[in-house]
Formats: sequence, structure tokens, C-alpha cells
Amino acid sequence: VPAAARLISLIEANEQKAKDVLRLLFPHTGKARVLGITGPPGAGKSTLVRSMIAEYRARNLTVGILAIDPSSPFTAGALLGDRVRMGPHATDRGVFIRSMASRGHLGGITAATPAAIRVLDAMGLERIIIETVGVGQSEVAVAATADCTVLVLVPGAGDAIQTIKAGVMEIADVFVVNKSDRDGAMQTLQEIRMMLQLRSDRGSRAGVLSTRADRGEGVDALVDAIEMHFRTTENSGQLEEFRLRCLKREALDLIGREARRQIVDNLDQRVVERIVESLRRRQLDPAGVAAEVLAAHVHSGDRR
Amino acid sequence: VPAAARLISLIEANEQKAKDVLRLLFPHTGKARVLGITGPPGAGKSTLVRSMIAEYRARNLTVGILAIDPSSPFTAGALLGDRVRMGPHATDRGVFIRSMASRGHLGGITAATPAAIRVLDAMGLERIIIETVGVGQSEVAVAATADCTVLVLVPGAGDAIQTIKAGVMEIADVFVVNKSDRDGAMQTLQEIRMMLQLRSDRGSRAGVLSTRADRGEGVDALVDAIEMHFRTTENSGQLEEFRLRCLKREALDLIGREARRQIVDNLDQRVVERIVESLRRRQLDPAGVAAEVLAAHVHSGDRR
Repeated sequence: VPAAARLISLIEANEQKAKDVLRLLFPHTGKARVLGITGPPGAGKSTLVRSMIAEYRARNLTVGILAIDPSSPFTAGALLGDRVRMGPHATDRGVFIRSMASRGHLGGITAATPAAIRVLDAMGLERIIIETVGVGQSEVAVAATADCTVLVLVPGAGDAIQTIKAGVMEIADVFVVNKSDRDGAMQTLQEIRMMLQLRSDRGSRAGVLSTRADRGEGVDALVDAIEMHFRTTENSGQLEEFRLRCLKREALDLIGREARRQIVDNLDQRVVERIVESLRRRQLDPAGVAAEVLAAHVHSGDRR
Repeated sequence: VPAAARLISLIEANEQKAKDVLRLLFPHTGKARVLGITGPPGAGKSTLVRSMIAEYRARNLTVGILAIDPSSPFTAGALLGDRVRMGPHATDRGVFIRSMASRGHLGGITAATPAAIRVLDAMGLERIIIETVGVGQSEVAVAATADCTVLVLVPGAGDAIQTIKAGVMEIADVFVVNKSDRDGAMQTLQEIRMMLQLRSDRGSRAGVLSTRADRGEGVDALVDAIEMHFRTTENSGQLEEFRLRCLKREALDLIGREARRQIVDNLDQRVVERIVESLRRRQLDPAGVAAEVLAAHVHSGDRR
């Protein structure tokens, strides 16, 4: 496990080595089941994740955690050495926690997360939980690449329904109303079920559960629902198809980033100065600049 | 103003026409001052924006609003026809509101927002307010491209300080503690000021203010601070430099997206099938796929 921590740090630090390592690891990945836990700040995602770790460990499954939400205590722990605030799991070798809170990363979390998942997967961890805040576009996209996406909400569903309407709804496989002891829990469950009936595709089959994560209540049923989702989608072939779609999208994103880098690296300094000047004078807009640079690139490609 | 609404809809619907329109508009942009309002859900951003509209209108300045936060009432209003829930501003022709909540857009909000800003700018609106939730990576990035970024927080600063630590801090020019009648407002102000002293660059000059947006309290001082920031950065040349940096980054992003599209559009169907098969068998990872496709593209470029 310390080896994995070093590996992830290496991947974050050195891009070429990262590529080599990930290429070698790739054939050994795909065995872990990946779970995305998302929801608004304050929904109790981290507490829920902690209860889920305990539940999975009780089922004798090893667990990796990737905390992407910057306000997650796992992230805070990770910043202090990956082991703080984990309570009973701090010394359990069947649990591995990693924070992805570092920003400014090339391509951001969308690019960095698949790599980190693969390292945990190749290590042999059987379940990988990604915790993201369910508000940002990139964050929701990351959760959506998980084999099973869990949306965590709290009673008093004005916010909940807004979040749901805003697009997170479409990507969730399991809905959890956490803090189920609060007023309005039943109503929120009802509202979610009603909205789900309007959802055409996988909505009708999505699970809707309530938990009280601070006491571990409902967590066994949640893990059952998640495991059921894994089994159902695996047997129907949907899981493989979905993963392939994610891999293809990842490859396409990399093509875009790589192409951009190659083009930008080969830019003539005089061209750059001319472009900057026409942007400054607002003669050429960014799209015009892009078109001109791409045309020049094709041209120079001809001469190679 | 209805013309602008039609223009933005056109831009969202037809990519080629959008490019043409934006190219023609670009020389007429750069006059508006752009303000990013960001912060966690529940900080009262929308109420604050509403008060700011009133303040700007009292100063005889026209205002455009771009609501990116999907839970913003402006967004909800926009979905119902751009005019709901605006209260006194619903019939004011000096105020124009637009929602950018539609997701799944090519390149997402990062790509769509600059275009929408330019339309409002070319319309002659003098101040443009972008409201984004300050949690997601893309959302924070969008707020960071504004000429002045305002981070809105609430008293009881556990969350506030977490948000700040997580990277939003670096991009804010003005900090607002809203709901200043709540317990702990003074302490939160203190904590922000302390953190700002640790920030090297523009931190020492960032404004820290408190507001009670529901009553409009403190909003005049906030607008003063924002206008001061505009004047200071304009006089020092920082504003022009900053905008040029944003335009360059936008052009680079477009180069990446365009290059990706050109490459993907020209992919041989047999190559695609082979690639998908090697992804499925986990023989080649997404980075390997990207490298192979790019190599093949350079090769085919030679033959052109």
C-alpha cells in the first residue's frame, strides 16, 4: 500500500513516467467496481463513505477511496498524510485513501481521476469509492464515469429537487436521502420517486433509499442496492458497454489535449506575437486565432 | 434586447452561424466590465445580485446577468422565459438576464460563457454579472475570467475557510460576508482578513466587506469596491494584460477542441474498430490510443 501512495505521487509529479506506468498497469485493471458518491455540500457524503467502508470491510472486501471534494475530511486527512480522521480504518490495510484535491492539474480532475482509479484497481482493491461534490460540471462528470453513481441528498428537498433538475438526476443509479431523522425525509423520498417516474431510461430501475450515516443506519441496504446494480449491469452487458464508452471518451479528450500541445509547442514566436497583437486590438477573435493556427499547422505538416 | 435573446439562442443552436456572429461582434466588445459572483450554495448570491442590479441601475449603468448556477432563481426564471422572479427589473430595458444552465454543451460552460458575455458586451450593456456556484472546477474557472471576481460567503466560517483553502481564494478580488446579521459574521470577516495576509499577490489589496443582501445593506459599498477594482486595474494596465491572457487561453482551448474534432472526423472506420477492440481487451490504454491516432493523423497529413 505505501508503494501505491508513492506510485500515485509519481504519476502526479512526472507526466512521462505516469504514462509509462499507466500503460503497464492497464491490462491489470477493470476488476474493481467503481462507485461515485456525489451530492451537495453538507449532505453528509463523507460520513456515509465512512460507514460504507465499514460495511464493505465487514463483507471482507477491500476498499479504495478517492476524495475529490476539496472540503471532504478525507481530503483534509490526505493533506496531512492520507491517514488522519479515518478512525477505525486508519491502520486497516484493506483500506486505501487518496485525495485528488490538488487543482491546476493539466486537464483537471477529469483527466487525473481515471489514472488514480487505475492505480487503485491494479493494486487489487475490490471497491473504489470516488467522493465528489455534486455541483460542478467537471465534478458531476467524474461521478458519472463510475460503474454506479450514488446521489446523496438531505430532507427538506427544495435544494434536492433543484439539484436533481439541474442534471445530476440523469446520471444517478441510486438515490440516498441521508439524515433520515430530519423533518421531511419521507416527503423528499416521495419527491425523488415521483421525479424518477418521469425519467425514461434507467430511472425506473434506480434505487431510492434513506440512511442515517452517523449511526450507520440503512448503510447495509445501500451497499446491497449498489452491489445489485453492479451484478445487474454486468450480467446484461451494460457495464462493459458503459466502460468502453468512458474509455473512448477519455481517449478522445487526450487526443484533443495532445494535439493542442503539439500545435502550441511548434508555434513560431513571430506568429504568436502577431496573434497576441490582433487579439489585443480585437481584430481577430479567439475562434479566428484557432482557425489560423490550425491552418498554419496543417501547412507546416505538409512540409515535414 | 429581444434581438439579443434571439442572437444568444441562435449562437447556442447553430455552431457555424455562432462563429460568424461572434467574429463580427468581437471588434465591438471589451467595453463592458465583467463581474464574477461566486460562492457556495446558500450564500445568498442571487439575492445579492438582485441588490447589485438595483444599485447599478440607480447609478444609471445598464446591467447584463449570466446565471450559470443551475439552482439560481435567475436560471429558473430564464427557463420560464428570462423574465420571471426579477421583480422590479422585469420590465427595465436596462437589465438583461440570461441563463447558461443548459449542460451537455460542446466544451461546457467554459466554452459557452465567453460567447454569451461578448453578445451582452456588444449590445452595449455596461456591467455584466456572471453568477456561478463556487464549488466546481469549471464554475470557479469561469468566475476567474471576470474582470473582478467576488467571493460570497456566510458567517460560521468552517465551510467558508474550507472553500477558501480549496483554491477559490486565489482568484477572488473582493470578499463578501453576506447575511451579516447572523452570529459569527465578525469572526468570519477576521478569518478572511487573516488568510488574505498570507496571500502574496493581489491578496493584500483585496476588499473584504459584509452585506445583508435581503435588505440591500452594504451593497453600495460593495459596488464601490468593485468599481474601484475596475479603475485601479485599468489604470495600471493589469486589466488589459489579464484580459489578453484570458483571450489567449480561450484560443488555446479552441485549438485543442478543433484539432480533436478534425482528427476524430477523419478517423478511418477500420481504425476505430481496431482501437475499440484493444480498449475492450485492455491491451492499449486511452493514452496509447491517443498516441496512435495522433501518429496516424500526422502520417495522413503528409500525404495531403
